[in-house]
Amino acid sequence: MPETSSDGQMIPDIVRASHIEFFVSNLEKSRDFYVDTLGFVETESSRSQIYLRGLEDRSHHCLILTKNEGKPAVSHIAFRVRSDEDLDLVAGFLGKEKLPYTWLKHLEREEKGLRGRVIRAQDPFGFPLEFFREMEDVEWLHQRFDRHLRAKIMRIDHVNMFSTDVAKTTEWYMKNLGFYLSEYTETEERKPKYWATWLRRKPTVHDIAFMTGKGPRVHHAGFVVSQKDSILDCADVLASRGYLKNMERGPGRHGISNAFFLYLRDPDGHRIELYTGDYLSADPDWKPLRWKLSDPQRQTFWGAPAPDSWFREASDVVSVMTGKRVRTKEPKGGNPIFSSVTEKRRKLKVNLVH
Amino acid sequence: MPETSSDGQMIPDIVRASHIEFFVSNLEKSRDFYVDTLGFVETESSRSQIYLRGLEDRSHHCLILTKNEGKPAVSHIAFRVRSDEDLDLVAGFLGKEKLPYTWLKHLEREEKGLRGRVIRAQDPFGFPLEFFREMEDVEWLHQRFDRHLRAKIMRIDHVNMFSTDVAKTTEWYMKNLGFYLSEYTETEERKPKYWATWLRRKPTVHDIAFMTGKGPRVHHAGFVVSQKDSILDCADVLASRGYLKNMERGPGRHGISNAFFLYLRDPDGHRIELYTGDYLSADPDWKPLRWKLSDPQRQTFWGAPAPDSWFREASDVVSVMTGKRVRTKEPKGGNPIFSSVTEKRRKLKVNLVH
Amino acid sequence: MPETSSDGQMIPDIVRASHIEFFVSNLEKSRDFYVDTLGFVETESSRSQIYLRGLEDRSHHCLILTKNEGKPAVSHIAFRVRSDEDLDLVAGFLGKEKLPYTWLKHLEREEKGLRGRVIRAQDPFGFPLEFFREMEDVEWLHQRFDRHLRAKIMRIDHVNMFSTDVAKTTEWYMKNLGFYLSEYTETEERKPKYWATWLRRKPTVHDIAFMTGKGPRVHHAGFVVSQKDSILDCADVLASRGYLKNMERGPGRHGISNAFFLYLRDPDGHRIELYTGDYLSADPDWKPLRWKLSDPQRQTFWGAPAPDSWFREASDVVSVMTGKRVRTKEPKGGNPIFSSVTEKRRKLKVNLVH
Amino acid sequence: MPETSSDGQMIPDIVRASHIEFFVSNLEKSRDFYVDTLGFVETESSRSQIYLRGLEDRSHHCLILTKNEGKPAVSHIAFRVRSDEDLDLVAGFLGKEKLPYTWLKHLEREEKGLRGRVIRAQDPFGFPLEFFREMEDVEWLHQRFDRHLRAKIMRIDHVNMFSTDVAKTTEWYMKNLGFYLSEYTETEERKPKYWATWLRRKPTVHDIAFMTGKGPRVHHAGFVVSQKDSILDCADVLASRGYLKNMERGPGRHGISNAFFLYLRDPDGHRIELYTGDYLSADPDWKPLRWKLSDPQRQTFWGAPAPDSWFREASDVVSVMTGKRVRTKEPKGGNPIFSSVTEKRRKLKVNLVH
Repeated sequence: MPETSSDGQMIPDIVRASHIEFFVSNLEKSRDFYVDTLGFVETESSRSQIYLRGLEDRSHHCLILTKNEGKPAVSHIAFRVRSDEDLDLVAGFLGKEKLPYTWLKHLEREEKGLRGRVIRAQDPFGFPLEFFREMEDVEWLHQRFDRHLRAKIMRIDHVNMFSTDVAKTTEWYMKNLGFYLSEYTETEERKPKYWATWLRRKPTVHDIAFMTGKGPRVHHAGFVVSQKDSILDCADVLASRGYLKNMERGPGRHGISNAFFLYLRDPDGHRIELYTGDYLSADPDWKPLRWKLSDPQRQTFWGAPAPDSWFREASDVVSVMTGKRVRTKEPKGGNPIFSSVTEKRRKLKVNLVH
Repeated sequence: MPETSSDGQMIPDIVRASHIEFFVSNLEKSRDFYVDTLGFVETESSRSQIYLRGLEDRSHHCLILTKNEGKPAVSHIAFRVRSDEDLDLVAGFLGKEKLPYTWLKHLEREEKGLRGRVIRAQDPFGFPLEFFREMEDVEWLHQRFDRHLRAKIMRIDHVNMFSTDVAKTTEWYMKNLGFYLSEYTETEERKPKYWATWLRRKPTVHDIAFMTGKGPRVHHAGFVVSQKDSILDCADVLASRGYLKNMERGPGRHGISNAFFLYLRDPDGHRIELYTGDYLSADPDWKPLRWKLSDPQRQTFWGAPAPDSWFREASDVVSVMTGKRVRTKEPKGGNPIFSSVTEKRRKLKVNLVH
Repeated sequence: MPETSSDGQMIPDIVRASHIEFFVSNLEKSRDFYVDTLGFVETESSRSQIYLRGLEDRSHHCLILTKNEGKPAVSHIAFRVRSDEDLDLVAGFLGKEKLPYTWLKHLEREEKGLRGRVIRAQDPFGFPLEFFREMEDVEWLHQRFDRHLRAKIMRIDHVNMFSTDVAKTTEWYMKNLGFYLSEYTETEERKPKYWATWLRRKPTVHDIAFMTGKGPRVHHAGFVVSQKDSILDCADVLASRGYLKNMERGPGRHGISNAFFLYLRDPDGHRIELYTGDYLSADPDWKPLRWKLSDPQRQTFWGAPAPDSWFREASDVVSVMTGKRVRTKEPKGGNPIFSSVTEKRRKLKVNLVH
Repeated sequence: MPETSSDGQMIPDIVRASHIEFFVSNLEKSRDFYVDTLGFVETESSRSQIYLRGLEDRSHHCLILTKNEGKPAVSHIAFRVRSDEDLDLVAGFLGKEKLPYTWLKHLEREEKGLRGRVIRAQDPFGFPLEFFREMEDVEWLHQRFDRHLRAKIMRIDHVNMFSTDVAKTTEWYMKNLGFYLSEYTETEERKPKYWATWLRRKPTVHDIAFMTGKGPRVHHAGFVVSQKDSILDCADVLASRGYLKNMERGPGRHGISNAFFLYLRDPDGHRIELYTGDYLSADPDWKPLRWKLSDPQRQTFWGAPAPDSWFREASDVVSVMTGKRVRTKEPKGGNPIFSSVTEKRRKLKVNLVH
């Protein structure tokens, strides 16, 4: 049964982040990266789409790659809700807030594998969302270890986004969609503000996260692997198959989330994270963890510092109503990460040689 | 907000299995095993008790060792509930069902670390339960890697019990306490019956499990480690510190739960499982997995077969009202595991030599 | 330059154990096991043979599977020597001792991949040996991580044999072929005798080992993997591909050699060991490690005890001159492992159930 | 028995690199780093020295830390020889070449743990060397897994040095001390020259390596760990204990040697490498692997690029006769690594932010 927000509004019960759809330019190149190199399982595909899942998934997909003539972009970020009533709550709320939304009418054409009713909507910040309850069951490969290959990707964990106003975005998701705050980074002004937030529905660190940046854009989708070795094995394979330059950052350990990570850029520049080692956050008295923007172990508990691209580049998103790219803007007042840390390092003349 | 059962009864919202209390005969021997050999963190202790937690725990304890003159036994199995209202729901239900229960009055003496209201109760099958909402916050050692030692135990995962009637026990826990069934083993009669069940509140495989056996007894408490290597490292340490005989079964992989496991017997014979590699079971359309009792990969996806002791020995439980040992009985009609599998193996004369 | 034995004889410089040839009954079944399940690399094959190598090998093969109408057997155990002069030393010595030997004349037909001169010989105990200096170079896959699959087998490490007189066999290999003793197991009589010995040329624990048993027979060939996880991954794959029963013993850790191990039986019953974690034994003042036969941690530092089959079953060997099976006999005076340990365990009635 | 060089000179039989001595400024700080954080075993110590060994070592030490008032430096790099005759060969050769050398007279004062005769010598390039045959046996902790902590360091593997003329240095070590070349990096001039070489006596990738740079200086000492996870665990511990800045480079994988690595700077700036995953190079027909200086996967098969400090900073060495620091000079004609790669990257403005 749904919870109720402070102003008496019924909150839909979102179970977890379910999947993401990337627009890509060349399906064969994408398949070489995601299936042959990372080991995603191909559930189903056509001339224009590849539906992928992880080894732990019992449902049709956690990642959709769709061939699109235009520039690469994110089509939508999807959440699974607990019941049909939760979909009605979502629709009711969207209508009340006058937000653009639509019920998908031709699932077979619009998104294979989904069942029942499906909502696509644009949030007030421009992010394209999807809400649904049912997805087609597929073979569970969790104990088909003969098919566990490469990075041995288990499932999607989260989606991380650039927002121009993290405080406002965070408040909206917590109040209206029932997300909980697990960790956050604050600026170091006299009145500290959220610079980034990690929000969850399932009892882990997050299903979604927001970082201050030119937005709305999707920074990355995070996928779970079972242990650190899977990430190291995958790094070996990436380097063997010509994907050295696609390894943008890591492996290393995050302070926030505690995860051991590796960030990759796919052939279209979409960023994904291989992620393992966060924690259970089920307890009701969980107190969000606070990090200072100036703490270097916040982002990098250890490992090489993040390159500039990691803070600047991300995937555009599209409108769920028109399919057009959503216009982006810079955060008001600039991004403190650049005025402080980058510049300091620039002056330090950190030079690299192979 | 609580869910409602089929007959309109409000179901308390249990978050997860929280901890267990073992009566032990010698605290120093227990400390050598749990702290010095397995790497549990000692939160607090006295002449008569040791409170232990895992590296991921932010709360006071997930395991209590209490010196007791009598034979080793399990004092109680505890569940954390979401809110104070959930405690009232528990108490209301217990009263209605005329089950023995009590509110703890002197926490400092009865169980350190707990806060607020605490219920102790006996379920209809004799298992001693505890329900509470609040526990004292303690230092989080998740990123104090200098203190991650031995098995690097993260937290409790589940408690596994021998029940004389698994079907009835399972039904009671699902109907009244809102547990979900994730996997089960069936007998192979014409009308198959539950031989064992895995039940969850948190979205993993289980918080509690029941196996057919002489009961009520506690078979084991399962503790999570982050990766398989922690279990292998711990095996090395156990063997180096004279605990070879305490390694009862494993390492191996379970079919059920998919976990990589190692079963240990503590100095008093209490059994614990080191456990890693199960899965997220958050989705509302999760279909319980069925296993046949005759399938050898059910228990042992691979690894040496379980020894006879694993199927026969377990810890007695005590009455929450009197502190006396609860009388046990054999399952009605006998335990099919012994009439079939063991005997077959006996005839095969599987002999072992070092 | 060769060393000299105590009686002034020049000792050939053996570099290491190089490969082994198994006679098998069905090449497709063998390929499914060795290539598709264990991940050996297939260098070359024909209707009657498969030549396999590991990921670290730069040479043509470390394992040959040859289809043979008769019962499974071991055709030969091969050693690489440092120089052509060492082959002459071997031949000279064999002639002097009047041992049966032959120079291979048609390498392309008799053993592909070899180059130069090759000796096949029968030692005084019946073991079929091969000595050579050169093998064909093949692609090194050590950094082709995209081809590192399944158990990620690196190379051969050793061959373990059942001898009816371990003391005599050991003395012969040390005196005439320059092997060093790294570890040994002694019986517990008043005058202890070697029950098993581990002998090396390359500076690890062993290239060959002898255990007391019905002989001459080959107990197993050991193959190196880089880390423990490769063995666990392989166990998962074996169990997924229907090879549960082929996992005879382990995973566990040996006392002797310190290796983390898993013993497998191939479709013909030949035994192989996956092996990792022994040590460098380069120092000239290395003192052989002594173990008592009664020490259970000798064989099993930890892990389930070895099954009876592990002590009784092994592969027959053939004559290098006639190709006929070499007759085997039991050790004189019986095998103390059976009179002591097994029987003790039998009385303990260690019963197993799945 | 010793080999003979091309001009008929008898070559001493060096078994392996044995240990290194660092002059340090503060023993307590060094102990916190090496013992409490990295897990080296402290064999013996005094007010002025700490003798350390690895878990696989049976001998007294593989690393000596000696308090010294002056600047940090390397006192000597030691090799173990096979026999006393090999020491005579070394001394004979040094005398013939008129190189400075001395027999240690007061081992108890000059270097504890050594036994028998010990030579200290300066090679023609200024590197301080030691040759000995015997070292005191100490408790082997290989199976005392309760004492395997932190990085679980097994033993020393190699010492890497900056030489102003790698070709000449390499030739000298191969011709006179019998080292074999396993891998090398060449410049990309019309007549390519060695930019770096990896040389071995024990059958692994190397015991010593030379890279082009301001010399004579010691770039790093490499220590073996058993598996990649030990390096990741150690990174976690380093970051938890305030040593984030001491992690100079990695973890990553080298092209050359194939090792998975992490480079650390100790409190005095001495560099050590944690190293695992190279290969057996025993075969006599091993062909050295050639790498081009311009190949980025040479140094970094994958991982963040090496920082500038890694190519510029190193430890000075001292004279074995006077104890004074050996004067260093730049390579004649400059270091191509800086004229090419660094500058290219500088222009690319690779900026980093945390």
